This record gives sequence, C-alpha cells and structure tokens, in this order.
Amino acid sequence: MAALDDLRIRLDEIDGQIVRLYEERMKVCEEVGELKVKSWGRVLDRQRERNKLNDVASRVSNDFNRKGIQELYEQLMSMSRKLQYQQMVEAGALGRLPFIGIDSLEKDTARVVYQGVEGAYGQAAMLKFFGEGCNNFHVRTFRDAMEAIEDGAADYAVLPIENSSAGAVTEVYDLLVEFENYIVGETILPVRHTLAGLPGTDLNQIRRVYSKAEALMQTTRFLSDHPDWEQISVVNTAVAAKKILEDKDSTQAAVCSAYAAQVHGLSVLVDEINDDSNNSTRFIVVTNQKVFLKDASKISICFEVPHQSGSLYRLLSHFIYNDLNMSRIESRPVEGKSWEYRFFVDFDGNMGDAAVKNTIRGLREEAINLKILGNY
Amino acid sequence: MAALDDLRIRLDEIDGQIVRLYEERMKVCEEVGELKVKSWGRVLDRQRERNKLNDVASRVSNDFNRKGIQELYEQLMSMSRKLQYQQMVEAGALGRLPFIGIDSLEKDTARVVYQGVEGAYGQAAMLKFFGEGCNNFHVRTFRDAMEAIEDGAADYAVLPIENSSAGAVTEVYDLLVEFENYIVGETILPVRHTLAGLPGTDLNQIRRVYSKAEALMQTTRFLSDHPDWEQISVVNTAVAAKKILEDKDSTQAAVCSAYAAQVHGLSVLVDEINDDSNNSTRFIVVTNQKVFLKDASKISICFEVPHQSGSLYRLLSHFIYNDLNMSRIESRPVEGKSWEYRFFVDFDGNMGDAAVKNTIRGLREEAINLKILGNY
Repeated sequence: MAALDDLRIRLDEIDGQIVRLYEERMKVCEEVGELKVKSWGRVLDRQRERNKLNDVASRVSNDFNRKGIQELYEQLMSMSRKLQYQQMVEAGALGRLPFIGIDSLEKDTARVVYQGVEGAYGQAAMLKFFGEGCNNFHVRTFRDAMEAIEDGAADYAVLPIENSSAGAVTEVYDLLVEFENYIVGETILPVRHTLAGLPGTDLNQIRRVYSKAEALMQTTRFLSDHPDWEQISVVNTAVAAKKILEDKDSTQAAVCSAYAAQVHGLSVLVDEINDDSNNSTRFIVVTNQKVFLKDASKISICFEVPHQSGSLYRLLSHFIYNDLNMSRIESRPVEGKSWEYRFFVDFDGNMGDAAVKNTIRGLREEAINLKILGNY
Repeated sequence: MAALDDLRIRLDEIDGQIVRLYEERMKVCEEVGELKVKSWGRVLDRQRERNKLNDVASRVSNDFNRKGIQELYEQLMSMSRKLQYQQMVEAGALGRLPFIGIDSLEKDTARVVYQGVEGAYGQAAMLKFFGEGCNNFHVRTFRDAMEAIEDGAADYAVLPIENSSAGAVTEVYDLLVEFENYIVGETILPVRHTLAGLPGTDLNQIRRVYSKAEALMQTTRFLSDHPDWEQISVVNTAVAAKKILEDKDSTQAAVCSAYAAQVHGLSVLVDEINDDSNNSTRFIVVTNQKVFLKDASKISICFEVPHQSGSLYRLLSHFIYNDLNMSRIESRPVEGKSWEYRFFVDFDGNMGDAAVKNTIRGLREEAINLKILGNY
C-alpha cells in the first residue's frame, strides 16, 4: 500500500483535473444560458436534471459513491441554474415579479393600526416606525389588526413577531399564513417592564397580577419570588394597566411599561423587572399589497414539508447551494395535520437577485404551500 | 455559437470524465482511510482541508467559480470523512463514545417523577411508558422534575416537549440546556380537553376559567365564544381541576382532561373543546445518566450559532452532506444575548453511525456549546 504522502500527491493530481473540468463545465453552462436568454427559454428543466442524476449514478461502482455523485451533481446543477438566472437578470429576460417594487412607504399619509390600547408596546413601535404624528387607531387582537388591513380600514399594521428572550410570537406567525398580507418593514423596540399599581399600593397587599402571557414569561424571575400571586393573562400589557385603573382594587397590579402606567394613571411599584435587562421586541409592518422596497435586503418565506424521509434537509439544501444566509428558522405545527410542520425562514436577499430566484424556484418544486411573506 | 444539442453533448462528455475522477478520488480516500485505521490517525485534518480549499480556489478564473469550487470541495471532503469514519467503525477503531449503550431501561424497578397533580396528562404519559404499576411521585413544576432526577430522588422524569397544535413547550427546551440530564425515550399521548366544573354548574354562570397556558391556547376557538371569561394560567390542567373543587365556586371552571375532572370530582360541562380534534402531545423521558438504548434511532442535539453571516447555513450543511434526515428544528433565544439563537435539531441516527460521528465532529468544530441531548 502506498504511503500517505504518495496518496496525497495522487489526490492533488486528481483534483487538478476535476477543477479543470469544473471550469470547462461552467463555461458550457454559460453558453447554454446565452441560448436560453435569446430564446426566452426556461432555466429549470426538471426532466433533464433527473436524467442526468440517473446517468451519473449508473456510472459508479458502489452504493456509497452512487449517493455521493448524485449529491455532487445536485449541487453542480444548482450552480448552473444560479449562473443562468444571473445571465437572465443581466439581460432583463427574467420577466415580471409577482411583487411590485416601490421606492419608499408613504408614511405621512398612511393610516396605521396597532393591537392593544394607548400605552401598548405596539403603539410605541408604531410611533418609532411611522413618526409621532402618524394617523392611527388600535384594535383588541392581532387578528383584528390583520382584518383591518385586509379590509382596507388601515394601510399598515404593526405587530410583534419575536422577543429577544421569550422567542416567537406564534400567533402572529400563524396569522401571516392565514391572511394575504405582506411584510414591508420591521423595527426593534427595547422592552422594559415594570410592576404598576394604584398609587399607594403596598407590595404585600397584592394578590393578582395582570399582563400579556409573553410579559409574564419575561418577568418569571421576579414573579417567582411571589408564588402566591395569581397570574392572569390579558391580550395586552396596556389593557392590564387599564384594568387596574378601572377596578380600583389595590390587591391587583399590572406588568407593563412605565409609559402604559403613566397613560393609565398608575404608579410604578417596582421598576425594571424583566429577567433580561437587554430585552427587546421585533415588530413587523404589514400591508395588504404585494409590494416590496427596492432596496430591501431580507426575505421571509414559509412552506410546509412533505411527510417523507429527507424532505427537510433536501429543502434547506436550496439555501446552501445558493449561498443564501438564513438568519432565522422557526417551525410551527400545521393545523389539522399532526406532527407536520410549517417552516418560517428569514434569509438575506432581494427579490431581484438570481440566487433568490433560483432558491424560490427550487423550493416551489419541492415544498408544499410555499408563501413569500415579504421582502423588506 | 454552438446549438443547444451540441452543448449538451459536450456536457455529457465532461460529466463522464468528472464521474471517473470522482470514483478514482474516493478510492484513494479509502486507501488513506486504511492507513488511518492502522495508525489510529485522526479523520479530520482541518489544516489540510483549508489548504485544499485555498488551492482549488486559486486554480479557477472568476469569483463565481471560486465560490462554486469551494462549495463542491467542502462536500467532497465531507464525503471522504464519512467514508473514513465508516472504515474506522468497521475496524472497531473509533474509540469510546461518551454515552454508554444499554439494552433496555429498567422500567419495573424505576422511580419516576411527573409534573402536576393526579390526573395530569403527564401522569397518563408516564403510565403509558412505564406501565400502570410504576413507582412514581409528582412535583409542582418542570424545574422541580429536572431537579428530582439530578438529585437522584427519581430515576426518570416524564416531561411534555411538543404539542401537535400549540408547538414546542419552550420551558422544557430551556431546561434541557440548563441541566445535565439526557433524553432516553419518548411517548405520544392524545390530548382531549374538556370544560369541567362543579356538578350542576350552568355555562352562563361562569366568569373565570383556569388551565395551563398551552391548554388555553389549544382551546382558543371554544374560549373565543366566551370573550367575557377571564383566562387564568396555572402550572397544570389537573391543578386547575383541583382548584375548582377546592374553591367550590360555580363561577369558575377548568380546561382539563375528563380523567382529571373525574379524579377531582368535577363534571364535564362541555366535552372535546380542543380546536384540533387530532391533538396530541409528545413527552420525553429524561434521566441523569449519559446512556442510550443500543437500538435508538433518533438523536436530539442543540447548539448556538456564532453571530456572523452564513454561520447557520454552514452548520446545517453538515446534516445535508452526511445525508442525515432532520425531523425537527426549533430555535430559542440564548439568554442574555439579544437576537442570538440556540437551535434544537432532531435527526434520524444512532451514536454508532459513521454519518452521525462525521456530523457531530463537524458541528463541534463550528458551533458554540454543542450538546447532545440524547439518543432514543
């Protein structure tokens, strides 16, 4: 048997030839791309790709290599497709996108809806994104906000999607699937919870604390020092503050922002009670039109994964082969189908990019119910 | 310019050569593997892999191909590593695993802990997995259950990890990271919620409904028909049932199982109130020893992703290059680090598999705080 050094020299020789052939192959693919640009041909030819995979598999001598060469060719063909999409983009031959590119959002004239009541974090996020003087109103639930933009009662809705310590706001993810509304922006808001009550309330009097479920989770450490307090979930932290004011019952307190306490005439009994002092929440801006900002750099999509072995890894390979950076993956159960999941993926890119086209095209072939949630 | 058919003939010729070189390359890698088996050498040589990537990148003529050839060689080298791990496994040269293989769990003599009180879904899951007569006790919180096995007060804990409609039980995911306990089994239990109250309670009397937060979420549709009912979260559905019995207040009701209602002397006021009639919950069985069943087929791991572009997709490529089927990905925020995530991945495999070894080795190089949660 040859010594290790000899084997490595042989590997280097083989690799020199593989690299040469790879370059030659990409050059031929580029020529194919030029023909396709001229003839408005389709980049993806599923049948030809399948034939190629079968052909290369038939030429090797064992199962390990059969699997390996097929994986290698899936990657190679994805690269060729990406190259050809790029050629088409450059030649302006890629056709219309389903989303309409816009230069900016008309923030000054927009009518905006948020969930909760005055003093809600959602209100603060809205003011941050649209400006202090924006035309706005509020509704009781996230669903109401989605319906308001679907109906056209509002142009934009501002909704929380993720908290830095509690994680995803799962209901909003589910609503993004249900409604034909699209994400056009996002803004991040620091979250600083306080315990607020009627002026003069003594901590020892308190028996019940009201807040939103997420806020109760974000203040677990503080609340676990008071195991005898009942924790009651309401739809919004500001609704909790309002309730304390209305009930005029000093055995009750709310977990809410200092701003919500002030708006509803409460005193801050304990300041900064979040477990994590760097807590913040990411809000999305949603509209009913299929538009995207031309300088958008982040895409959110969701898709269901078919119930068969290997399907998730095959789907994610499209991101990897197209070199697109996924910044977030979130999974949610698909309603009515036990143990099937819908994946929400955020990745860097713009609708106009060849790599994005290539990925979306590949996913659409293999995933179920692919939906582009927005580019922002 | 050549016509499409001519270009395709050239591609086929090039591919014939690439396939031949691929087979030759794998054969040389196998010989390298044999040398490594004999000399107890390491499969992964990071420096050599880096040099190879730089070398192939330097031989191509443009940026697109530079990126492409590097991706191709990352996949090729991962294949070689997988082959060599396989050779080492076959030769018994891979060394000891940190987990000890066992033939079965000693269910008859085990002492088992579940969270909640009598009648909890966790009790039903425990009885399903360990048998009706098993030696058991219950604690108030998930954390208490984790501490009971850490202390040795119990051999196993049974904890809910995921519901088919509400999704992940995020607290249990976080506790798996915090404690040095390991998953050794799982069981799935159908969930059928009822509205239960004191015998003779009229629905119109009800003002407050108690349950676990997840169960309130799973019955949203029913509860939204009663918007005036206050929803109060307690730690467990059976605790809610117990409270209704103790308070003897017929303005209160619980969302719990029919079994919990019966155990605590309540009447079922409305049966089957879950939104999804096929609702079920997956429970995991956790122990304080680093063991795995020899016929285990599913592995759970978690890891943090470094804060740099492309790191998530690079990490997931290890699953793809090793052809391991991921059945689930869940992300949770990392405590104290805003917008950094810990990923929980379930995938098919056994600790002894070469592809698993190869994947874990690759992940350990690139991920932060990789932890194997169990093989079961």
